Amino acid sequence: MGDYPSALLENAVSQFSTLPGLGRKTALRLVLHLLRQPEQDVEQFADSITRLKKEVHYCRICHNISDTEVCPICQSTRRDRQTVCVVENIQDVMSVERTGQYNGLYHVLGGIISPMDGIGPKDIEIDSLVARIQPEQIQEVILALPTTMEGDTTNFYIYRRLAPTGVRVSQIARGMAIGNELEYTDEITLGRSIVNRTEFKG
Amino acid sequence: MGDYPSALLENAVSQFSTLPGLGRKTALRLVLHLLRQPEQDVEQFADSITRLKKEVHYCRICHNISDTEVCPICQSTRRDRQTVCVVENIQDVMSVERTGQYNGLYHVLGGIISPMDGIGPKDIEIDSLVARIQPEQIQEVILALPTTMEGDTTNFYIYRRLAPTGVRVSQIARGMAIGNELEYTDEITLGRSIVNRTEFKG
Repeated sequence: MGDYPSALLENAVSQFSTLPGLGRKTALRLVLHLLRQPEQDVEQFADSITRLKKEVHYCRICHNISDTEVCPICQSTRRDRQTVCVVENIQDVMSVERTGQYNGLYHVLGGIISPMDGIGPKDIEIDSLVARIQPEQIQEVILALPTTMEGDTTNFYIYRRLAPTGVRVSQIARGMAIGNELEYTDEITLGRSIVNRTEFKG
Repeated sequence: MGDYPSALLENAVSQFSTLPGLGRKTALRLVLHLLRQPEQDVEQFADSITRLKKEVHYCRICHNISDTEVCPICQSTRRDRQTVCVVENIQDVMSVERTGQYNGLYHVLGGIISPMDGIGPKDIEIDSLVARIQPEQIQEVILALPTTMEGDTTNFYIYRRLAPTGVRVSQIARGMAIGNELEYTDEITLGRSIVNRTEFKG
């Protein structure tokens, strides 16, 4: 039993501490919080997890999470259906949506190429992206992947795979974050900002 | 539906973000992590919570969490049954146990007196503490509550309630933390350390 006065408690704490970024101390705090809640609330909590896992769908077109077989974005007639934004994961769709600056479709890769983690092009949704271009008459693919080495590798791989289709491929701009000062911007970002400078329209 | 591509996802995120210290962004990260695990693991996770809430007991003597009606500590014949250490909550029992310096019994108040939060003496396990002294022939009660104003208030209240029983009441020492430097110790703690100095046994 170790430190824990209850095996049930220890089991729940162990389960919580499998979650990313949660140590056993935090897990214990969360579990004891749950324990203080009414039984009905705790059941709803547990139920929300079970139901999510059992009932959730992934859109068969863009692979975003969805309650239906095709997600609302892919179903929408009010969106620009000729542009696809390629992102690493579900959170990234939400991030781009929140900007309010994008009205096209998405394609969720479900990861990026990372030889270190044993993730190759076949492990993520690249084939299904390439397969969408012609039937859906996509005109532009916007690569919105992390600005890391893995992101760059994935960008380059996708670019080569898309080349035969003739679709236009772009990537999101890299440069200084809005509101930052030059003094506090790292030299690689600042260097890129200079190389990729854009015309000033006064 | 707001930002979330799935109502099931949003529901699970909302449930997680009711936990203390978890914002919606962290909740989303945890939920998406669970979603990537095998269904069986997710069920075990949800099950551990439901079972804990439904099946856990609180020791009827010391009110610590327990899988049995009377906890292993209260049942033990190898512990000093004349000394009771009074703590605020279950975590504190675990903290004291981990020191390896205490071999008596416990009494878990389940909170401390805090007029600001509307917690009075009747809301915590003080009556049951007083009721234990004579039948169990307790010789000493060690107050191990937080060194805050609420802790001091609770200490003082318990002290007055215990006075008629004639039991010896002590409190854990307050002073400089082991390994600290005077320069970085706050003046209240340092002042207390001087006032409550102990004889040096060279």
